[in-house]
Amino acid sequence: MSTEPSGAADPRAKTVLRAREGIALPLRAGERLRITNLHGGQVVDTWALARTDLREYLSMQHTRTSLGKLVPVTGDHLYSSSRRPLLTLVDDTSPGAHDTLIAACDRERYRQLGAAGHHANCADNFRRALSVRGIQPDHVPSPLNLFMHIAWREDGGLEFLASPARAGDYVTLEAVTDVTVVLSACPMDLNPINAGGPQDVGIEVLPVP
Amino acid sequence: MSTEPSGAADPRAKTVLRAREGIALPLRAGERLRITNLHGGQVVDTWALARTDLREYLSMQHTRTSLGKLVPVTGDHLYSSSRRPLLTLVDDTSPGAHDTLIAACDRERYRQLGAAGHHANCADNFRRALSVRGIQPDHVPSPLNLFMHIAWREDGGLEFLASPARAGDYVTLEAVTDVTVVLSACPMDLNPINAGGPQDVGIEVLPVP
Repeated sequence: MSTEPSGAADPRAKTVLRAREGIALPLRAGERLRITNLHGGQVVDTWALARTDLREYLSMQHTRTSLGKLVPVTGDHLYSSSRRPLLTLVDDTSPGAHDTLIAACDRERYRQLGAAGHHANCADNFRRALSVRGIQPDHVPSPLNLFMHIAWREDGGLEFLASPARAGDYVTLEAVTDVTVVLSACPMDLNPINAGGPQDVGIEVLPVP
Repeated sequence: MSTEPSGAADPRAKTVLRAREGIALPLRAGERLRITNLHGGQVVDTWALARTDLREYLSMQHTRTSLGKLVPVTGDHLYSSSRRPLLTLVDDTSPGAHDTLIAACDRERYRQLGAAGHHANCADNFRRALSVRGIQPDHVPSPLNLFMHIAWREDGGLEFLASPARAGDYVTLEAVTDVTVVLSACPMDLNPINAGGPQDVGIEVLPVP
């Protein structure tokens, strides 16, 4: 038996999410998840499902509606398909470029971009990470794309730009209620969003303060 | 037996969608659906499901990604969750304000806006219209909100403005493949989006040219 505090023995406490891979992490209300751009320039697709009802998902369309904003900032709640806050963005040391507009990359996206053969993708990472925990999602919700820089013009045009996140920049999300969070270190290498090519991401679960 | 052309006998040919109500309409590839703002200022929440796979839905996040735009314009395809074009926006006589950002209104939205008791809403209209056709959707996708004026600022702030659609303005959607389209004459009366309060909407299915 370990005599360390239970938080220190938590296998979720500090880990590395490998480039191009996904992970699902249960969080209890009050726990915080810190997502660190270890090398800079890396997009992290982020989802959450309520633990009490797996059909209730973190929803970008409901978050935009509740916030009246395209992009959440520090202090904002992130809302579910039932208009409940699931997460709070409690800390952000990055330049603040995050995206709520763009769908998760998937096999068809890479086929249309000219990839030859199979390409790792965020939609498969989402499904696989949940499958490991016995969850079969009915669809792939539109993710919160942390560190992703999608610029909007006055005329509504969108541009896919390189992530401005620097090495060591992090975002901290706090669970408002019990959730399962899914992260994917986006494998995109056919447009400029991942500034240095797909890279590893740091993940740390911080105990309830 | 009618001796009129078959198109004229089609019960979908020309109808009125009552204010605050919804309807589901099957469209075959090539058929066109004209949606007319009979009185001006009315938002129409619009969804589509592929007939070959009801899990494939018209997706605002995939449409924004494929178009590189916040709002589609005449000539644009509207894309599914599988990145296939389901519809084409072939005609638009309105000022062009349409929205892809805001979730369908639902019971909780009206509760949060202070409505007392039950309030008609687009999410229930979507589910009810499909239920009549024996379809139980697994979630309510983010709709294409025709005629809805959501303005975005440079800083990402969003504003809910009155629909600028005039009486008689219409949008025509062409089915690229066989789809079921769902429309809801949005019942919102607690913010300014429906300029004249909820109003009836004209619907017309035009035969393959």
